[in-house]
Amino acid sequence: MKRLVLIRHGQSEWNKDNRFTGWTDVALSPRGIDEAIAGGKAMREAGFKFEAAYTSYLKRAIKTLWLALEEMDLMYIPVSNSWRLNEKHYGMLTGLNKSETAAKYGDEQVLLWRRGFAIAPPPIDENNEFSPINDPKYKAIPRHEIPLTESLKDCINRLLPYWENEIKPTLIAKNEVLVSAHGNSLRGIVKMLKGMTEEEILELNMPTGIPYVFEFDDNMNLQKDYFLADEATLSAMMAEVANQGKK
Amino acid sequence: MKRLVLIRHGQSEWNKDNRFTGWTDVALSPRGIDEAIAGGKAMREAGFKFEAAYTSYLKRAIKTLWLALEEMDLMYIPVSNSWRLNEKHYGMLTGLNKSETAAKYGDEQVLLWRRGFAIAPPPIDENNEFSPINDPKYKAIPRHEIPLTESLKDCINRLLPYWENEIKPTLIAKNEVLVSAHGNSLRGIVKMLKGMTEEEILELNMPTGIPYVFEFDDNMNLQKDYFLADEATLSAMMAEVANQGKK
Repeated sequence: MKRLVLIRHGQSEWNKDNRFTGWTDVALSPRGIDEAIAGGKAMREAGFKFEAAYTSYLKRAIKTLWLALEEMDLMYIPVSNSWRLNEKHYGMLTGLNKSETAAKYGDEQVLLWRRGFAIAPPPIDENNEFSPINDPKYKAIPRHEIPLTESLKDCINRLLPYWENEIKPTLIAKNEVLVSAHGNSLRGIVKMLKGMTEEEILELNMPTGIPYVFEFDDNMNLQKDYFLADEATLSAMMAEVANQGKK
Repeated sequence: MKRLVLIRHGQSEWNKDNRFTGWTDVALSPRGIDEAIAGGKAMREAGFKFEAAYTSYLKRAIKTLWLALEEMDLMYIPVSNSWRLNEKHYGMLTGLNKSETAAKYGDEQVLLWRRGFAIAPPPIDENNEFSPINDPKYKAIPRHEIPLTESLKDCINRLLPYWENEIKPTLIAKNEVLVSAHGNSLRGIVKMLKGMTEEEILELNMPTGIPYVFEFDDNMNLQKDYFLADEATLSAMMAEVANQGKK
């Protein structure tokens, strides 16, 4: 049996303020740190012994991974970082407060921007302080590949080559792999693994800090998937995520 | 110009107790955490923008690296781990208090075991709780390569292939590389870079948490090397390390 675990980073300083974050590199909040440690503890207690881990270029996902690995006493395993696991880029919405944006443009427009499968917000200006173009983190990436805005579809499309070329071959070669990333990049992996429709993936609200386990047979056929949490915790977390962005 | 920085992990829970640690995987002490953060701050203030980092399989060096990278806002750079960067293996001395060992065997014998260039302590018993043979961390390493004791010479010999095959090529391809490791594995790198004799390297007491900078021209000729600390701090740290192991 092979096991893949997805974990969405805990609360960040901007989630707390209800702002569109996307590629902005904000730190975990104290609550986010606690969530990551709790996620690591849950995986340790469930007996996971990961042999490799993947995360994005954003510190809230990296720190979530590091805290979880420390909790599991697995700090030495190989960790690979990729911008392809980054959160969806929110374009010109980046940095705006979600409630304010909803009050200005209406819940419906914001929901389309946040959750319309192929609808991207207007692009961020290249000179905007939050533009990725001038961030040294991304200097090795061809400029035309760096997004200035993304729909969920765009986010999934740039994620999939990394799944196919890096994560999946590792899972085939090893037994247990961990991915620490973001709400929308993880949706891309879940959609692909479960063969979900666009409508179905839009309904999935990944809870923060709760490990999402996928079990495969040796031919990489998905056997089952489940969250490492009790029903009550899970429902409360999902409802909280679903309510973000309402005014 | 190319720059390599070596950092020795901060105080661990066993350094604090003055016990022979070697390959035992003990955590940083609160002081060690502060030392790592201070080292990261010194590198950030000196303008380092590392493009790759290397560390051992031991959490005191990994955590030192992670804390320093977090302080420098460089959490996304590629990090590679290798058992070849581990501390010297202290054989059957592992876990013993250094002062007690000195009182029992004499300062001179302990100094030979700790600092005799080609003198290894008696090997650890394979069934000893501190033996690396049954540690899952090392399960991918051929059993005959896993040391049960090491002299400084042995430690350097198993380190050098990693320098030649991994770290050096990266430094040739990039400009700034960071290595977080241990007193004796870092001695191996310093000896090789500075062409030191066995006597000279035995005199070098690597201070903990203080970045040691090596500058090279583009042909990898060493131009200069220096610690990122003022003279007083440096002397105090080196004296402290040199005094360990006396009864």
